Amino acid sequence: MSQAKMEDIISLCKRRGFIYQGSDVYGGLSGTWDYGPLGVQLKRNIMNLWWRRFVDERDDMYGVDAAILMNQKVWQASGHVDTFVDPLCEDTVNHRRYRTDHILKDNGVDTDGMTMEQMDAVIAEQGIKSPDGNPLSKSRTFNMMFKTHVGATESEDSISYLRPETAQGIFTDFKNVVDSFYPNLPFGIAQQGKAFRNEIAPRDFVFRSREFEQMEIEYFVDPEHWQEAFDELLAATHEFLAELGLKPEHIHELDVPAEDRAHYSKKTIDIEYDYPIGREELMGIAYRTDFDLMNIQRASGKSMEYTVKGTNTKFVPHVIEPSFGVERALMAVLSGAYREDEQNGEKRVYLALPEHLAPVKFAVSPLLKNKPELVEKAREVYAALTKANPGRVMWDDNGNIGKRYRRQDEIGTPYCVVIDFQTLEDGTVTVRERDTTEQRRVKVEEL
Amino acid sequence: MSQAKMEDIISLCKRRGFIYQGSDVYGGLSGTWDYGPLGVQLKRNIMNLWWRRFVDERDDMYGVDAAILMNQKVWQASGHVDTFVDPLCEDTVNHRRYRTDHILKDNGVDTDGMTMEQMDAVIAEQGIKSPDGNPLSKSRTFNMMFKTHVGATESEDSISYLRPETAQGIFTDFKNVVDSFYPNLPFGIAQQGKAFRNEIAPRDFVFRSREFEQMEIEYFVDPEHWQEAFDELLAATHEFLAELGLKPEHIHELDVPAEDRAHYSKKTIDIEYDYPIGREELMGIAYRTDFDLMNIQRASGKSMEYTVKGTNTKFVPHVIEPSFGVERALMAVLSGAYREDEQNGEKRVYLALPEHLAPVKFAVSPLLKNKPELVEKAREVYAALTKANPGRVMWDDNGNIGKRYRRQDEIGTPYCVVIDFQTLEDGTVTVRERDTTEQRRVKVEEL
Repeated sequence: MSQAKMEDIISLCKRRGFIYQGSDVYGGLSGTWDYGPLGVQLKRNIMNLWWRRFVDERDDMYGVDAAILMNQKVWQASGHVDTFVDPLCEDTVNHRRYRTDHILKDNGVDTDGMTMEQMDAVIAEQGIKSPDGNPLSKSRTFNMMFKTHVGATESEDSISYLRPETAQGIFTDFKNVVDSFYPNLPFGIAQQGKAFRNEIAPRDFVFRSREFEQMEIEYFVDPEHWQEAFDELLAATHEFLAELGLKPEHIHELDVPAEDRAHYSKKTIDIEYDYPIGREELMGIAYRTDFDLMNIQRASGKSMEYTVKGTNTKFVPHVIEPSFGVERALMAVLSGAYREDEQNGEKRVYLALPEHLAPVKFAVSPLLKNKPELVEKAREVYAALTKANPGRVMWDDNGNIGKRYRRQDEIGTPYCVVIDFQTLEDGTVTVRERDTTEQRRVKVEEL
Repeated sequence: MSQAKMEDIISLCKRRGFIYQGSDVYGGLSGTWDYGPLGVQLKRNIMNLWWRRFVDERDDMYGVDAAILMNQKVWQASGHVDTFVDPLCEDTVNHRRYRTDHILKDNGVDTDGMTMEQMDAVIAEQGIKSPDGNPLSKSRTFNMMFKTHVGATESEDSISYLRPETAQGIFTDFKNVVDSFYPNLPFGIAQQGKAFRNEIAPRDFVFRSREFEQMEIEYFVDPEHWQEAFDELLAATHEFLAELGLKPEHIHELDVPAEDRAHYSKKTIDIEYDYPIGREELMGIAYRTDFDLMNIQRASGKSMEYTVKGTNTKFVPHVIEPSFGVERALMAVLSGAYREDEQNGEKRVYLALPEHLAPVKFAVSPLLKNKPELVEKAREVYAALTKANPGRVMWDDNGNIGKRYRRQDEIGTPYCVVIDFQTLEDGTVTVRERDTTEQRRVKVEEL
């Protein structure tokens, strides 16, 4: 897939009401995106499917919804205040700021595992300049958390951050969930919600934005049995990816080598996907040991130990973390579904979305909108289908049939239902299928 | 209902896993709350019901999901930067800060419609002191928006705010939605999502918190037909409140008099509810005229006019805004459902939640947990029920039957299903109903 294709997807998303630039009418706010009516529906379909598979259908999972604003101690204990930083350098002439690793990457340098000092050294050695051709400053660290103040006084004590991940909300609620439910080990706590990172250079559409949505699980285990839990969650993840309609040949497991893993992680598998922008991380599963709960225990002075039921055995559970970015899942779904073909010598664009994810499942229209008897019958069919598929049926009588099909193809509607004169006679409608463009006559009741 | 009852609800919410103090393990962060497993489920049930009734089942509604971080021009144009303020005064000895209107209200003064200067005058005249008995300073205005900076530079230009309402996200996306879908007037744009207000004194549990969730609709109309739309949305709101299980006698319509309405609003009805803390606003429906779209048109220089299909008639639509706070709906549901009675001389607490809202619909347990044949059969029943009601069936074999019933009563589970020896013989189970505490024998298939 080519970069051009990314442009096509972005353009389709805006034109058809999937995703708009955030604050668009005011010239935008870089790194923020708004979901339009179809984008909301698609996102809800993905997020609800995840919640159903990973929370509702399992008896070892507990949902939470923690606040976005948290006590600053959370981020001190987790290490984010000190280490959640990017290297930042500046064009010494026009003072534009850049991520040092991005500058190097754009100059063909692989920065994996490099310290900031090493990056600066490469810039100096190779005489790398800013995109405007000017010398670059030495780098400094830039914390990616958005900072604000809570309460009527602005002081060190009142600092709070927009959470840069949902995971810490789960860890913070660990003790409360155990106290309320006393679940058997292993068990997981799951959360969906917004997270925020002040990216110096947001890019690649919703792929690297400043505000995004996560679906995370912290799965608490007896350390002796971490491997089984890891394997089971990895398998469940692959099942979920298949349900998103992602092709196995576009999905790659990267067993992250020790030197690239967080120091506390004993194993991490990144699931990468072949996006239009290249192979990039879609989600990750990390064995985080007891790193997070031990941090909280130290910082809060409260025990994070779990007592195995009916015994005196106590320990701080270890954790497996499957972590999804919703936007990355959504981008994988959209880019995997994007198709172009030719119909009667004309280019056709369509989204081959799985039926259960498509924002609109049925588009209904009368063949001719100036024939009241067709319109009336079409309204009947529309009402009946809406009742059975609330929110997933669209009334579409704009333009001629050809135009309607093209529009519905672009938004990934699997079935276009047309009510014509024959409908009035025998109760059948024309159903046109998106992927094959084939038309069949079907009894209304069979839809 | 008394204040004591509010304490009972708060205590139940924490104990049973509905709602915890935010950042609890670190001593909390005032005005933030985390939803535990049952709270998430209840909240999802309420929010999904709203989405279904107001978006999915209507063909005049379009959903959006706008970013929380928006271009600061949004809040300049809307007036929030200048006027979204509370009066703030300070204890002149210990420098604690208070909302001036709260201080007056606590001293029995009705501040409705008072200016800040008038409030200060009353404090001076009556010699009102701080809660610690010290003199109070003159008041100043305090903007309730949380401020942060977006990007690598902290300057006036990089200021952004956490949105204090979801409504402006809808207005900002108005033009994009019209361009993508060109809907017929009247139509609405709906959004659910977080909003943030830096309350000086958050109080009353989740009722006045710093981070909360809204469900808002901006319904765009031809100004000549605003009244029909207003009436229809008010009626739909009452239907929704009935579905939340709220009793009509606890619901009150307040037709807000002109002097208490926002200056641009031609009519506002507040729906108030009898909470344990008194009669307070649950939601509001406001006719906002073209105030918001005209502000955007002026500030952005872009036309917000809508062209009526097939005509040359153009105008900026007027707006009816039904606005819900999710937490206030949830508090109404919880406090309306809270019951105490006596069973066999013992106090019993239960939540009489409507079946479709209860986080857990069925609790399943074997009569005795040390009888493998009962446990096995109970597991079968549990699996079958879970399949039909994913996420809403709880396995509960802790303690004796009496304890299980008390626990399930407190979380509002309508049906406790017990598998006993008779089940093995005739396939019937005991179903114990929450509200009546009556027990019936029912065939497993009939559940």
